[in-house]
Amino acid sequence: MLAVTVQGGQTAVQVPLPERKRGEALVRVKRVGICGTDLAMFDGYTDHTGVIGHEFAGVVEEADNDAWIGKRVTSSINFTPSDYPFDWKTAKHHPRRTALGIRGRDGTMAEYAVIPEDALIELPASVSDASGATVEPLAAAMDAVDRLPPGVGGDILVVGDGRIAQLVGRVLQQRHHRWAIVGRNRMKLSLAKRAGGRGEEEANIHKGKRFSRVIEATGSPEGIRLALNAVAPTGTVVLKSTLSEEVQLDLSRVVVHEIRLIGSRCGDLEKALEAMARGKIEVTDMITAVYPLARAAEAFEHARRPDAVKVQLEP
Amino acid sequence: MLAVTVQGGQTAVQVPLPERKRGEALVRVKRVGICGTDLAMFDGYTDHTGVIGHEFAGVVEEADNDAWIGKRVTSSINFTPSDYPFDWKTAKHHPRRTALGIRGRDGTMAEYAVIPEDALIELPASVSDASGATVEPLAAAMDAVDRLPPGVGGDILVVGDGRIAQLVGRVLQQRHHRWAIVGRNRMKLSLAKRAGGRGEEEANIHKGKRFSRVIEATGSPEGIRLALNAVAPTGTVVLKSTLSEEVQLDLSRVVVHEIRLIGSRCGDLEKALEAMARGKIEVTDMITAVYPLARAAEAFEHARRPDAVKVQLEP
Repeated sequence: MLAVTVQGGQTAVQVPLPERKRGEALVRVKRVGICGTDLAMFDGYTDHTGVIGHEFAGVVEEADNDAWIGKRVTSSINFTPSDYPFDWKTAKHHPRRTALGIRGRDGTMAEYAVIPEDALIELPASVSDASGATVEPLAAAMDAVDRLPPGVGGDILVVGDGRIAQLVGRVLQQRHHRWAIVGRNRMKLSLAKRAGGRGEEEANIHKGKRFSRVIEATGSPEGIRLALNAVAPTGTVVLKSTLSEEVQLDLSRVVVHEIRLIGSRCGDLEKALEAMARGKIEVTDMITAVYPLARAAEAFEHARRPDAVKVQLEP
Repeated sequence: MLAVTVQGGQTAVQVPLPERKRGEALVRVKRVGICGTDLAMFDGYTDHTGVIGHEFAGVVEEADNDAWIGKRVTSSINFTPSDYPFDWKTAKHHPRRTALGIRGRDGTMAEYAVIPEDALIELPASVSDASGATVEPLAAAMDAVDRLPPGVGGDILVVGDGRIAQLVGRVLQQRHHRWAIVGRNRMKLSLAKRAGGRGEEEANIHKGKRFSRVIEATGSPEGIRLALNAVAPTGTVVLKSTLSEEVQLDLSRVVVHEIRLIGSRCGDLEKALEAMARGKIEVTDMITAVYPLARAAEAFEHARRPDAVKVQLEP
């Protein structure tokens, strides 16, 4: 079957069909998104050499439990070892965890993927394949918002205008928060404004404008420095970025201003799917382009362009 | 009068007696400690050019309110501008704050200092001048401990064996926490162990030993990297260090392991003094040496030696 691997910087190549083990489902992938982690992996972020991809929607073709067969699904991406009961929260930090298309397990940028049945989540009919492949990053965006302290006045600042930043904005909007966004791409800023955000000038931050709550979602050292600059004394910065490089930081600001810096990685997919199914969060207008899997190289190139938001593949 | 200033890297020099303004007290300084911030100021940490020093005990000689005259005192170190009501918590982050011997206000490494009366705290007879000059750093250590999340199992790890680390250990001990300390100086580690801490080998951290709660008190980039290495997934690192340089950090660990990094600066002096006055925390065994103010250069040199804990000056 056709699949995307990072080995040797390759994109779409022929690999053997994955083998389904006990407790696993064979899923025919219908849609799969390209995210920051996938791009970072091409830049050497991990030593994973197999199939990549973890934001997906597909149909179960084989499973131990017949009830799954024919169902449209997505899934959690972190799995506990097979001798542990599955729980996405525990799995997230288990030292022997595997992560779909990231660590010790082939991913979903392929015609077929195998997924532990316990991790599968059924997609309701109201959620399209395109949206279903966005449940995982939406859950991550929700988790970032969940980590902000409650009840502090003023706009919440989103630093960055990319994939995750756009989703964070939609979560903030769904929760009736007032939010501002700072970014450098006019098209992407317009998208965020249409979703309810206020555009903030980077210059205002350099001039001293401060926010008590900041979510950093650029994935760049420069973005992290801007976020640390934008946060008010005793404020909170949630870091939601995959970084493939080290960052030079002035931590004396963190100490002197008694700032909280909180890392956030993956969220609760059921919760994200719930908001999507109820029509509270719409994501399809964020999809810049969809490519067939065979044109993955082109799709990755597109995903790196400054004006691209979400690029997806269709196996 | 004799005073220590950082201007031109000088130590003890002759300066005019400070002028007491409305609402301020003139304090004859009896004891003053050298802390990490004072050392960092000699390394260019701030652009303060006046008298330095902020950990002190003294006697009020003149004040608007007669009740203060003759009283033994120490004080908060952050002051709101004179058109604002005084409150140490607000003052700590006020954009126009002054800070004793650090920012916009002469400090206490001098024969006399002027202090806003609202910021004075009376020392009870049971607290010596030596201990009184340690209330401020003890309050800072308490604040660092207060920022740890409650109820998480396992030892609390203190990174560093210097001035603040030793005080943090004493606060942890007073609160009946189990704590471990990692440091490089045998004498200082012994001091911490006598106070109730368990010595932890740095090698164990490099081998993968993890702690859910870590307090970083080395003030060095290396110490911060060790603390980030030692913290378990979803754990908390409290940063209690004055850093005069930027730090190169792997923030992907903070994101992937969903770590909380919390800056802490100054604490509640009344609370620290309370614990000291009740005999719950003893600090005088931490005092390595006391020098007359005229020998400040020698005292600063001593404070920088690896085996020095707290060096104080006696004007």
